[in-house]
Amino acid sequence: MAASVTVENLNPKVLKCEYAVRGEIVIHAQRRQQQLQTQPGSLPFDEILYCNIGNPQSLGQQPVTFFREVLALCDHPCLLEKEETKSLFSADAISRAKQILATIPGRATGAYSHSQGIKGLRDAIAAGIMSRDGFPANADDIFITDGASPGVHMMMQLLIRNEKDGILCPIPQYPLYSASIALHGGTLVPYYLNEKNGWGLEISDFKTRLEDVRSKGIDVRALVVINPGNPTGQVLAEDNQYDIVKFCKNEGLVLLADEVYQENIYVDNKKFNSFKKIVRSMGYGEDDLPLVSLQSVSKGYYGECGKRGGYMEITGFSAPVREQIYKIASVNLCSNITGQILASLVMNPPKAGDESYASYKAEKDGILESLARRAKALEDAFNKLEGFSCNKAEGAMYLFPQIHLPQKAIEAAKAAKKAPDAFYALRLLESTGIVVVPGSGFGQVPGTWHIRCTILPQEDKIPAVISRFRAFHEAFLAEYRD
Amino acid sequence: MAASVTVENLNPKVLKCEYAVRGEIVIHAQRRQQQLQTQPGSLPFDEILYCNIGNPQSLGQQPVTFFREVLALCDHPCLLEKEETKSLFSADAISRAKQILATIPGRATGAYSHSQGIKGLRDAIAAGIMSRDGFPANADDIFITDGASPGVHMMMQLLIRNEKDGILCPIPQYPLYSASIALHGGTLVPYYLNEKNGWGLEISDFKTRLEDVRSKGIDVRALVVINPGNPTGQVLAEDNQYDIVKFCKNEGLVLLADEVYQENIYVDNKKFNSFKKIVRSMGYGEDDLPLVSLQSVSKGYYGECGKRGGYMEITGFSAPVREQIYKIASVNLCSNITGQILASLVMNPPKAGDESYASYKAEKDGILESLARRAKALEDAFNKLEGFSCNKAEGAMYLFPQIHLPQKAIEAAKAAKKAPDAFYALRLLESTGIVVVPGSGFGQVPGTWHIRCTILPQEDKIPAVISRFRAFHEAFLAEYRD
Repeated sequence: MAASVTVENLNPKVLKCEYAVRGEIVIHAQRRQQQLQTQPGSLPFDEILYCNIGNPQSLGQQPVTFFREVLALCDHPCLLEKEETKSLFSADAISRAKQILATIPGRATGAYSHSQGIKGLRDAIAAGIMSRDGFPANADDIFITDGASPGVHMMMQLLIRNEKDGILCPIPQYPLYSASIALHGGTLVPYYLNEKNGWGLEISDFKTRLEDVRSKGIDVRALVVINPGNPTGQVLAEDNQYDIVKFCKNEGLVLLADEVYQENIYVDNKKFNSFKKIVRSMGYGEDDLPLVSLQSVSKGYYGECGKRGGYMEITGFSAPVREQIYKIASVNLCSNITGQILASLVMNPPKAGDESYASYKAEKDGILESLARRAKALEDAFNKLEGFSCNKAEGAMYLFPQIHLPQKAIEAAKAAKKAPDAFYALRLLESTGIVVVPGSGFGQVPGTWHIRCTILPQEDKIPAVISRFRAFHEAFLAEYRD
Repeated sequence: MAASVTVENLNPKVLKCEYAVRGEIVIHAQRRQQQLQTQPGSLPFDEILYCNIGNPQSLGQQPVTFFREVLALCDHPCLLEKEETKSLFSADAISRAKQILATIPGRATGAYSHSQGIKGLRDAIAAGIMSRDGFPANADDIFITDGASPGVHMMMQLLIRNEKDGILCPIPQYPLYSASIALHGGTLVPYYLNEKNGWGLEISDFKTRLEDVRSKGIDVRALVVINPGNPTGQVLAEDNQYDIVKFCKNEGLVLLADEVYQENIYVDNKKFNSFKKIVRSMGYGEDDLPLVSLQSVSKGYYGECGKRGGYMEITGFSAPVREQIYKIASVNLCSNITGQILASLVMNPPKAGDESYASYKAEKDGILESLARRAKALEDAFNKLEGFSCNKAEGAMYLFPQIHLPQKAIEAAKAAKKAPDAFYALRLLESTGIVVVPGSGFGQVPGTWHIRCTILPQEDKIPAVISRFRAFHEAFLAEYRD
């Protein structure tokens, strides 16, 4: 008889894969949440506050009305023929829904689409990219996906042959990258972001890492850049981007640009530049550099994580390679049409003159201004905690403060068989109900400890988060002070 | 400088993967469709009829009203507070939407959910399974996914370590299985369905195959059964299912039951039995047999392919193995919420007494009865063509007739460097605009040739499909008769 299925005979790549943002601490938090339901009052807090993941609507952020109006109309197109609809929906949502349905063969939002997504929606996304960058974009280069993650997996699947293929990744990094590289059996080649320099990217560090691993027989195939940064929240300077592009061009690397936080910028002295724009500004065209740019409906001011919409724009790949990417996309037939529609909407929101424009702009500005205030409030609060140092929150949805833990806490963590920052995060959860992810889940300079905390609790809850956090931290230090 | 990206340095598993239902012939059909738009009248037909894929709404099938009402309300919950909504939506759609929103934390349809899907929706799916089977089902065993495909990929990822791990698959098979096994680097171990016996499964054939490959060092890990069959359309007899379960139990194999066509049965003397029901009827419990059952919102009478909803129910896996499955699911965070809601709806449609019940039942019966008539009409038509033999269309959405091609046609195909059935399918497309998939894309007994044709063209088009097909076939035979 054959052996049955045990952990010992599973795919070792699966066993090796880790994904901290939904890891041990989050599973523990879910148990505590159940406990709060079944035994109210049994814990020192009355709610779990999930600051572990960029999931704004789970914490009370409201969806943008215009987007949801269009989705509802596309889901149930019969509404477009009813008189009452005019009083329930804005005129531009109605006309946008009609326009979208007209681009879908047979108006069939329930049909599988082209494997890259509905052509008319890809045209709209390409138009949005062109208006963002000032350089042409082509619907044939767009692959609409269920969120940004499938794009990352597709590229890893394409590029990684075995453990001798390496992917240069920032450390700290969003663990989707380490997980996807592990699942595809490749090697993550780390480059460290410079915390002292606002989590900047140092080209000299790229070069050192590259030469080092090449001497060990690793074929480095791509460089991952996350801009704005996750978990680190920095926004890259334009000069830095030029250097990154030159480096990829010179070294023959695919540039995999995770640009899902492109709308999340909170400081006046920084702006988002897509790598596509940078590459084209430098005069590089299709033949110069393979570039993948990822965008998602889950982030920005829209935060529509549950809709699973996103796209990757691929340029600089030969036709035969593109055919292989198309084939991988085809195996899953297509991404969900609701997410496809939403991806076209976030790249083409209402414009001045549209009926919805004023309310849309008020919703958008309200969310982004509030996020900026929350980021600043948490940054300031972290910097006031003994032993904490937190870089400026320039963008994205996270703070990644460093925590200088007392030796006694480090020993206690060791005794509990936990990384010190995981030990800290678990204690924080048990005392306050606040869920953060330990830095060890993202990677960090050895011997340093961090946590990633989202800026997403609603604004009226921020003071309570800060005071609960402070009270916990002081008690923790009191317990473990050296 | 590193080599840039070429087909030669891509992952060979990607290169090896094939996916015929969106393969060469479909790409060619898309080109012809563009040609029809840019140069109308330049081809001997005026539309492309996609019979290559089970995509009912692309061919004019209308969505079930109740399902779409609930989706629209969940997409834009503000509607629930408006008076006009009562005249636009049925009362039970309104109450169902409220009930669903109440199970979603914060009513946030735009938030990432639990990695397995929203608990309340999994409870609803489990209740639907229990009502279908008469045996308990548990929300913790449900993983809601973007269509059924991600469930297949997850299981292959989990079970396949290297090319020495084998998966027993029917031949002919739906090429998702061969594609997924190729992408994960395993070995497809074929067992042949018996065409002369209505595409039945022969346990003796399983055993021969198993012993044969075991002697070559292959560790067979799972048996895939597609019931009702794709591309073959048969519905398994209960006795046959008992034998399959016993075989898996005796040999220690995971039983991977693709049951996405469970609602598509067109003959009175067959009914669908889930493998879960069969397993439990035999008295086997959690410790006896690892079983994965796949369901999708893309099939059935609903045909909501574009919504990408589905689930897998897993039973008989140990807690540590389940944790690994959960981890893989977590890396992609969650499936789309619209698809999750729809998966809960198709497993819990309106019931007698609900306001929508009569119209829902009329829509459902209308679609299924029409599909049965179309299946029969095409089956009869195929059996009248010289050299065709077509088994009974018992279920699913396809016919898979065998074509006895003249030697001269086989030679012509060879000269054109095509498989004979691919040659036939391409000629069919060029003459009629009808897109079918050659049997070689699914696997077939060597030396036999088939095509897979969906039964999905709308009923008023079936006579034209049949006459165009017949005219083409007669001309083809006239050209190539030996």
